[in-house]
Amino acid sequence: MSALLDKIRVVLVGTSHPGNIGGAARAMKNMGLSRLVLVAPEDFPSGEAVARASGATDVLDAAQVVDSLEEALVGCTLVVGTSARDRRIPWPLLDPRECAVASCEQAAAGGEVALVFGREYAGLTNEELQRCQYHVHIPSNPEFSSLNLAAAVQVLAYEVRMAWLTASSLPTKVEKLESTAMLNAQAATADELESFYGHLRRVLVMIGFLDPQKPRHLMTRLRRLYGRSAVSKLEMNILRGILTETEKAVRGESHKQGKSDV
Amino acid sequence: MSALLDKIRVVLVGTSHPGNIGGAARAMKNMGLSRLVLVAPEDFPSGEAVARASGATDVLDAAQVVDSLEEALVGCTLVVGTSARDRRIPWPLLDPRECAVASCEQAAAGGEVALVFGREYAGLTNEELQRCQYHVHIPSNPEFSSLNLAAAVQVLAYEVRMAWLTASSLPTKVEKLESTAMLNAQAATADELESFYGHLRRVLVMIGFLDPQKPRHLMTRLRRLYGRSAVSKLEMNILRGILTETEKAVRGESHKQGKSDV
Repeated sequence: MSALLDKIRVVLVGTSHPGNIGGAARAMKNMGLSRLVLVAPEDFPSGEAVARASGATDVLDAAQVVDSLEEALVGCTLVVGTSARDRRIPWPLLDPRECAVASCEQAAAGGEVALVFGREYAGLTNEELQRCQYHVHIPSNPEFSSLNLAAAVQVLAYEVRMAWLTASSLPTKVEKLESTAMLNAQAATADELESFYGHLRRVLVMIGFLDPQKPRHLMTRLRRLYGRSAVSKLEMNILRGILTETEKAVRGESHKQGKSDV
Repeated sequence: MSALLDKIRVVLVGTSHPGNIGGAARAMKNMGLSRLVLVAPEDFPSGEAVARASGATDVLDAAQVVDSLEEALVGCTLVVGTSARDRRIPWPLLDPRECAVASCEQAAAGGEVALVFGREYAGLTNEELQRCQYHVHIPSNPEFSSLNLAAAVQVLAYEVRMAWLTASSLPTKVEKLESTAMLNAQAATADELESFYGHLRRVLVMIGFLDPQKPRHLMTRLRRLYGRSAVSKLEMNILRGILTETEKAVRGESHKQGKSDV
């Protein structure tokens, strides 16, 4: 299998029907993807999953089962969540083709990619969607827009394979990808970003900018800003350093400059 | 639904599992296709088909059941059959994207199109394939190449929708532009950014994170981060607000949270 495709994981959140897990595994293997992560599946392992996988049992056997989306995203430098189109807060939106190109580019640059799919009936929560840098929407009939979960995995996995085939047949493209590798390889991971958001929130509460009783959309907006910025590890260290020094300064532990102003 | 999409029929030949007929109906309706023709299905109508159709019962109810492929193709001006790649007799071969473009062009020109899918285990016979002007092959893992029937219908139907959207007035593209327009139209200006950088620098000195005697590359790195992020006016207001509240908190002018920590 391709090293590039191995860097793209499929994350299924809170799946109800094991048959869909099996169908997703089959669709993945058909398209050359192998890394399946299941967040709190309702029924797994399951004979129904094995039946629908129709021979892709290696993908099921190797599936990682975790309790939270956070765990599923550890190490990821690009996280894309499937979404219906009508969210109130706009978020960078890709179609499946753009999603696939971005995923292959990120993987070619040495990053790790997660394609995140929600529950059969309820999709991803807004909180979960906010952990994604991009949303992807599969174009569909507005009057009948909800795809079967395995069918949605099939569409995105198919586009990933098409993008991979295109990229691997174009040497200049690959060279270009390699040149961006230096920029992207050091990207902050999803878990580092989450840790940063937690720290940022604590500081915003501390300085009185965020009211925990009335948080409104503040953290959502900050997530969107930093989420689309492809923050590097170095930049993340700088931002974390600013937060730590802010805490010290507010507590009066800071050195001269801070103290002289108090 | 679109008159153009109504000219494209999906033909399933000799389907064994009614669940796949239901899954195909759902995939079709999701993508805006409505005309299903079943050639000698083994088990139809069926409760399992209805269950898997998940609301696309109108497609099932309107499905035409016929005895032969010939009957299914009456009136068609373009017939494309799904095929594994390794047929001995060479035939004009399309990938799903080319197939979708050809289908939409034919339908736009007033023709009738059939996309023909074979049996779950055996596909289409050579005789059936020879009734098709073109073959279409869905790119897949050579070691695990057989897609689920409904998944194959999903991929071709998805590509038809993408081609149709491109050919028609590009609604998704426009909507996507609108959603990014909301993000971008209100971009912060260069002077607002400069003013922010000045404010940020003052606060970093105040909290002791930036030493004016040894500034090193700190502001350069922060400029690069925010500079590539296309910060909006709204986001700029938030960032400026955070800086102002940080100054107040460090000076001890802040409200409870800040004060109680001092």
